[in-house]
Amino acid sequence: MGIAAAAWMWLMVAVGSLASRLCSSSPTINNSSSSCLSWRLAVEANNARAWRTVPPTCHDYVGSYMTGGQYQRDLDMVVQQITAYITTEVQLSNNNNSASLDAWILDVDDTCLSNVLYYRRKRFGCDPYDPTGFKSWAVKGASPAVPEIRTLFRKLVTAGFKVFLITGRDGDSLAHSTIQNLHTQGYSGYQRLFMRNSSYKGQSAVAFKSEIRKQLVGEGYKIWGNVGDQWSDLAGDCAGERTFKIPNPMYFVP
Amino acid sequence: MGIAAAAWMWLMVAVGSLASRLCSSSPTINNSSSSCLSWRLAVEANNARAWRTVPPTCHDYVGSYMTGGQYQRDLDMVVQQITAYITTEVQLSNNNNSASLDAWILDVDDTCLSNVLYYRRKRFGCDPYDPTGFKSWAVKGASPAVPEIRTLFRKLVTAGFKVFLITGRDGDSLAHSTIQNLHTQGYSGYQRLFMRNSSYKGQSAVAFKSEIRKQLVGEGYKIWGNVGDQWSDLAGDCAGERTFKIPNPMYFVP
Repeated sequence: MGIAAAAWMWLMVAVGSLASRLCSSSPTINNSSSSCLSWRLAVEANNARAWRTVPPTCHDYVGSYMTGGQYQRDLDMVVQQITAYITTEVQLSNNNNSASLDAWILDVDDTCLSNVLYYRRKRFGCDPYDPTGFKSWAVKGASPAVPEIRTLFRKLVTAGFKVFLITGRDGDSLAHSTIQNLHTQGYSGYQRLFMRNSSYKGQSAVAFKSEIRKQLVGEGYKIWGNVGDQWSDLAGDCAGERTFKIPNPMYFVP
Repeated sequence: MGIAAAAWMWLMVAVGSLASRLCSSSPTINNSSSSCLSWRLAVEANNARAWRTVPPTCHDYVGSYMTGGQYQRDLDMVVQQITAYITTEVQLSNNNNSASLDAWILDVDDTCLSNVLYYRRKRFGCDPYDPTGFKSWAVKGASPAVPEIRTLFRKLVTAGFKVFLITGRDGDSLAHSTIQNLHTQGYSGYQRLFMRNSSYKGQSAVAFKSEIRKQLVGEGYKIWGNVGDQWSDLAGDCAGERTFKIPNPMYFVP
């Protein structure tokens, strides 16, 4: 996803259809875990879109979800599905060959790296998006890895995939800290890290990420898989043979 | 979805990559509701695909889910999202005008009509797909409406949408009972019902439904929304301005 660039996105939203999107982001959620589960399901199934904050009545639910074990279990299940797909359906053209064109795409924020520690301070997404606050967090380069994704990443690299990381983070201000953060958290051996530069500012994540993927396909790569915590990581052109949605009920990136 | 035609689909699967798909449909599911919740989430987020049966350990979970209230709540949430979208983002070109080209697409099985009574006898999807059994059920024309979708349907028709029903059910054998079933359950005023005829046999639901949608777009229709219980209802060409996934953890249609 592209948190750092989401300021631009939300600016676009503000200029555009703010009123309608605000309305559509306000469903009636009772203060019950079953209602919040329905809301979370709607988020993960891409039914609920363009929401600005977690419904206030779901604060405790989302906090418990992210830190109490179920997020972990849901993530494990996705990784299990990814592993089954790689094992049984992917046929690498040139296993472990440096010239192979078998590609895999990973998003960075809340896919490779976890921002749960940051979002805990933002009431797990009940507070509205704070671009300055997030930038201050990201520039520290202190996001821990999502361990299951790091394990997946290493398996992918070892298996011979060329792993590309695509993030909406601003390259001008966050390249150094992001590269450092990925390195210290054990992400070594990826092929390229794509960050949003000035030519992509103001574009939605779907448009930006589609452009990068089209570029890769133009270079001859076959994108076997694409993993992200936002549907905007997985929609658009050249999305990949399979896409996998990592859970994230804390924020929405258009 | 297209249950009746799924026999063809599964035949294709058998001829094709049966082994790999069988493997990928067998994740490790502990006998706990939290694990089954993770599996259900993976289904709804389109991470788990090509599964042939509900994991045996999730029989009680899926049964409780479908009949104990949570399915209902999840469905209500999707309809809430649809209503918000229609109210705030759709701009009908020619409200209530018979010549308008504002289209909406609904799937039939487990979208307009519920087969929960049938699947209860099939251990809520723990038994493998039974084409003969399903046909015997469908030919009776006794599926009750999904009440929330019927209410949505009526609102759509009243608002001026041209509602098209697209089902993978076989038109040769099930046209009469399906039309009757829809009528007795209060689905009156739809524009057209598309069923799978001989020229679409052997095609996946994605291919068949894409063809129909392309045809509609070719006629000048704008597809504002598309609602189905299977991702194969919502994937492919001309999917619609927005798609909405109705929950269904009982079966998978490729």
